[in-house]
Amino acid sequence: MIIVMKPHAPQAAVNRVTDLIQEKGLETHLSVGKEVTIIGVVGDKNRLAGENLRILPWVDKLVPITESYKLSNRKFHPEPTRVRVGNHEIGPDTLTIMAGPCAVETEEQLMTIAREVKKTGAQFVRGGAYKPRTSPYSFQGLEEEGLRYMAEAKKEYGLNTICEVISEKAIEAAAKYVDMLQIGARNMQNFQLLREAGRSGMPILLKRGLAATIDEWLNAAEYIIAEGNPNVVLCERGIRTYETATRNTLDLSAVPVIREKSHLPVIVDPSHATGVRAYVAPLAKAAVACGADGLMIEVHNDPEHALSDGPQSLTFDCFGQLMTDLQAYISLAGRKL
Amino acid sequence: MIIVMKPHAPQAAVNRVTDLIQEKGLETHLSVGKEVTIIGVVGDKNRLAGENLRILPWVDKLVPITESYKLSNRKFHPEPTRVRVGNHEIGPDTLTIMAGPCAVETEEQLMTIAREVKKTGAQFVRGGAYKPRTSPYSFQGLEEEGLRYMAEAKKEYGLNTICEVISEKAIEAAAKYVDMLQIGARNMQNFQLLREAGRSGMPILLKRGLAATIDEWLNAAEYIIAEGNPNVVLCERGIRTYETATRNTLDLSAVPVIREKSHLPVIVDPSHATGVRAYVAPLAKAAVACGADGLMIEVHNDPEHALSDGPQSLTFDCFGQLMTDLQAYISLAGRKL
Amino acid sequence: MIIVMKPHAPQAAVNRVTDLIQEKGLETHLSVGKEVTIIGVVGDKNRLAGENLRILPWVDKLVPITESYKLSNRKFHPEPTRVRVGNHEIGPDTLTIMAGPCAVETEEQLMTIAREVKKTGAQFVRGGAYKPRTSPYSFQGLEEEGLRYMAEAKKEYGLNTICEVISEKAIEAAAKYVDMLQIGARNMQNFQLLREAGRSGMPILLKRGLAATIDEWLNAAEYIIAEGNPNVVLCERGIRTYETATRNTLDLSAVPVIREKSHLPVIVDPSHATGVRAYVAPLAKAAVACGADGLMIEVHNDPEHALSDGPQSLTFDCFGQLMTDLQAYISLAGRKL
Amino acid sequence: MIIVMKPHAPQAAVNRVTDLIQEKGLETHLSVGKEVTIIGVVGDKNRLAGENLRILPWVDKLVPITESYKLSNRKFHPEPTRVRVGNHEIGPDTLTIMAGPCAVETEEQLMTIAREVKKTGAQFVRGGAYKPRTSPYSFQGLEEEGLRYMAEAKKEYGLNTICEVISEKAIEAAAKYVDMLQIGARNMQNFQLLREAGRSGMPILLKRGLAATIDEWLNAAEYIIAEGNPNVVLCERGIRTYETATRNTLDLSAVPVIREKSHLPVIVDPSHATGVRAYVAPLAKAAVACGADGLMIEVHNDPEHALSDGPQSLTFDCFGQLMTDLQAYISLAGRKL
Repeated sequence: MIIVMKPHAPQAAVNRVTDLIQEKGLETHLSVGKEVTIIGVVGDKNRLAGENLRILPWVDKLVPITESYKLSNRKFHPEPTRVRVGNHEIGPDTLTIMAGPCAVETEEQLMTIAREVKKTGAQFVRGGAYKPRTSPYSFQGLEEEGLRYMAEAKKEYGLNTICEVISEKAIEAAAKYVDMLQIGARNMQNFQLLREAGRSGMPILLKRGLAATIDEWLNAAEYIIAEGNPNVVLCERGIRTYETATRNTLDLSAVPVIREKSHLPVIVDPSHATGVRAYVAPLAKAAVACGADGLMIEVHNDPEHALSDGPQSLTFDCFGQLMTDLQAYISLAGRKL
Repeated sequence: MIIVMKPHAPQAAVNRVTDLIQEKGLETHLSVGKEVTIIGVVGDKNRLAGENLRILPWVDKLVPITESYKLSNRKFHPEPTRVRVGNHEIGPDTLTIMAGPCAVETEEQLMTIAREVKKTGAQFVRGGAYKPRTSPYSFQGLEEEGLRYMAEAKKEYGLNTICEVISEKAIEAAAKYVDMLQIGARNMQNFQLLREAGRSGMPILLKRGLAATIDEWLNAAEYIIAEGNPNVVLCERGIRTYETATRNTLDLSAVPVIREKSHLPVIVDPSHATGVRAYVAPLAKAAVACGADGLMIEVHNDPEHALSDGPQSLTFDCFGQLMTDLQAYISLAGRKL
Repeated sequence: MIIVMKPHAPQAAVNRVTDLIQEKGLETHLSVGKEVTIIGVVGDKNRLAGENLRILPWVDKLVPITESYKLSNRKFHPEPTRVRVGNHEIGPDTLTIMAGPCAVETEEQLMTIAREVKKTGAQFVRGGAYKPRTSPYSFQGLEEEGLRYMAEAKKEYGLNTICEVISEKAIEAAAKYVDMLQIGARNMQNFQLLREAGRSGMPILLKRGLAATIDEWLNAAEYIIAEGNPNVVLCERGIRTYETATRNTLDLSAVPVIREKSHLPVIVDPSHATGVRAYVAPLAKAAVACGADGLMIEVHNDPEHALSDGPQSLTFDCFGQLMTDLQAYISLAGRKL
Repeated sequence: MIIVMKPHAPQAAVNRVTDLIQEKGLETHLSVGKEVTIIGVVGDKNRLAGENLRILPWVDKLVPITESYKLSNRKFHPEPTRVRVGNHEIGPDTLTIMAGPCAVETEEQLMTIAREVKKTGAQFVRGGAYKPRTSPYSFQGLEEEGLRYMAEAKKEYGLNTICEVISEKAIEAAAKYVDMLQIGARNMQNFQLLREAGRSGMPILLKRGLAATIDEWLNAAEYIIAEGNPNVVLCERGIRTYETATRNTLDLSAVPVIREKSHLPVIVDPSHATGVRAYVAPLAKAAVACGADGLMIEVHNDPEHALSDGPQSLTFDCFGQLMTDLQAYISLAGRKL
């Protein structure tokens, strides 16, 4: 940490800061400029908890140097993490495709979609049983019934399964039926839910919050890993900006940024990011081209009648075509399905 | 709802849309322009659930006309809501001040602050017992112990009390000890928590999410009210923008916007919005001047040693001065403490 | 400036950085932590131009300590600037009101509005003769003809006049007719125009860019002042965010932030910020309450037929009422019209 | 255009609106709902200029249906535009690479870089002679001297040349020396400059403004084309968001969105968007994968000593490797260099 003093801070003010830090057992290093003095602080900054140095007299600002996340930080874990789900490994060698409807609607719908998803070579079927919806009057999901259909799809087609959870109760239920849990964007800083996801020991897909910085996202991952569960995969799904031509703005730069800052796998969801079917395929290719470890894509047998997010769901034809087109990009990335 | 067709849509495509809508028992009204046909839809649009009109052939876009929130909508409830908490009423006649530390740290700390808060004429003491923190390594709150101190402060000084809740368990605990529950910005779209807050029947302070639109905020309020609990107060606390000179950007225009769209009271929290002590007082005055129903302000007996958010907390001197200065603004607003 | 090295940077890499800096005649101060070494740099950093230290091997990041703007910086000019325009002084003792139509449309329109503006006690009439419009098909202004009407209004009613300029040619023309030039939000980083505004020697109102940080805004002011023209007044007019209930988001925290960072006066334009007539009055009061040096407000004799921005223009009745209501807030701020 | 009336608007208020519209020679179509009446307006809406329908009594809002840009709109020009520059065509069959230094610094520097750029197969050398810089104290460019070096590089290596212009004077000078003019992000709404660029008849590269919506960007293109110059190429270069891990947030979804809304070619600049060298290559590949017509990339012979934007410039080795890697993506896109 670095402490920047205000211009022409008197010596006594500087001493007060350095004395306080040294009393706590940390070292200080002064750089005395013509106008400004800066104080480098060396040591365990947890010892300074309960000292708000920033509001001491003549202190201008504090500049943190080290990130607050450790377990999700590449600096302390240089090898990329591989998250095993069933017989599949999410990581640097594979390109993981999670496809399926936004919401599980009926058994028949899910089985029809799962069969198609399997046919294309995707490894996961996704489907929401607990839907966080902006309005209380929108369809909220089939809950445990939906989970049962997911388990059936797994059994019938040998697909891995993933489902969003929105409460402790949903985690308990989902853990019995599916292979991987998803924490949605709106819950990325629901710290209670993160801790419970950590305690479940299940593989977790952690979506980026709508307005979360990459640092906050990695801190959210830290909550899960700190409970002893290292099986975290990140998912970029668009951030909120002023632009309204797409539902959110897909931040593909997050892929190389995460690669540099963290060892966790990162996948991309172009369906939720754009909200428009026609933009899904080009951005799916782009995601693979910039190094993503996988894709989450909405597919529906009848998008015109989907109960949730139909306009962004691919038809079977579009999805089949995309999977065919993606092969060359996956090979270029040195990966395989 | 209005449906806009793409330029030069063939008659058959227009018919397909209008037939489908009429089959569901709604009326359609055509406006046929030189290039574009638009279809006005009249009737209960819930009947169209499961029809994704937007992706029918030749449909360009759907324009919603009515808001999805009803119970929090001023159109259907023109009179301003007054929320009673203990002997105090939050609403158009009063200016409600909620002041106290970000986090409850010790019994002594809370009692010291509560005494001071009472002295200034504020009606509520606030204090966090469950703290949502970006990093899992930051202080997370005293939990039930903190709530007990709140109850004591209430008893000793006759103040109303408010505390943030972050889980069902926290709601149950807090309902036993405090007068009003706060849903924090990070949980504004934790729909499970909103429903539970609704079921508690307690007065709820609903903070705006960091990247929530005003429409989403009112939909979040709708979740609470739809559970039969109309005692909702909104709190503007800054939104996330590109500007970094303040922690968030306080959106004071939200006050007159809410006044127009909703009947719910709205208060302002300049402490969390700015993150800087020196900006709290000017923005507190501004909030009262533009019509806010109250203020939430962080006050600490020893900000230099606060365990959370010290840099934005007012000292007793600053807070006392602000309360004195506010009197004239409160009178100008036609309100009283 | 501080240079942060990557964790476990070898000594040779640290030496390469410090040697390079010392060769240029600056001092370095090391803080060697367990993982990270930081280098404080003391001296004139202009000597480092042409050295991109940030991409030297093992350098993690550079942290600037001092602002790049000097002439607009309060640190080097603690006294608030007073900008004299005609017989009026914009600064800490006055509350300056600039009111008038978005666009000058006809002589009669401007004279009618100017008479009303004068009657309320405002000191400036504003009116656009060169209109920057998103679409080339919108009304673009009367140009020099509009300026002549401004000069007439000044003569007839003794008002100071202000007009936006969008090109060198416009500056030349406007300098002949009006008292103060306005640089609009879209031109805040039109550096060529800023320099020419500086060279004109005229008082300049510099609006904040739609997505400008406060630091960029003060750097834009620096361009003007660096040409020898210290007569700069800043104008906060809303920034672009994701919220669509208002046209832009008025950032009132910018007022106390500017007060701390700069000595320049700052006024607020609630009309352009919100785009909605009903929100102008509450936010005008809020602006005065949080310390603004003035207001820019759109007033029109017939908003229903205004050629530009009618929906946000106040009628004479509304404006008269607002001016009456503002008196108490102006007195509370220790100012006078 | 659609006009939405407030709930329960009286018949007289509806009549006032429809009468006014019909008087101007447009048609109206009513959709009368239980609560809300909406009025479809058919005809040339320019006839309504000077009528601010939005503030008529009982009018709730206006919903525009057709875009204000026509000449840049794909609806009226379905074939993709091909912009010819020298012997090269920017459009759907080619992948255009513009590479070079941020700023032209010396003759030797530019010639060295141009030779390398040529060797890799890129078709354009870029280089700034007029630099818009946030601070007036940063290097501002060599101006006409820089342009002369550009002309030399063209002559020596047969490369096409492009240079940013920031004023009418710069347009005049650049038109003599280079093949294509660039309007930078900060000038995207400098309408005077857009008009002059249009009048020059030169091919124009129009960068997206830092906070410009796609609609505003296409309206800016409209200013140029409306002057009789259809040779406009768009360039996505990152938008301003709250995320600070990259300098701006590259909005790759803009590529398919532009493809749908406009016939103009669109290229991508990952160097300015990210500001970090390591992120350029992955995002360059992503841009090609999602359909971009080209790339603008900063390359420098000695990034450690570049006078502007060194940290994001590729070395010759990195750039050569990227050009090699891109070949497969260019082929997959059905394009050639």
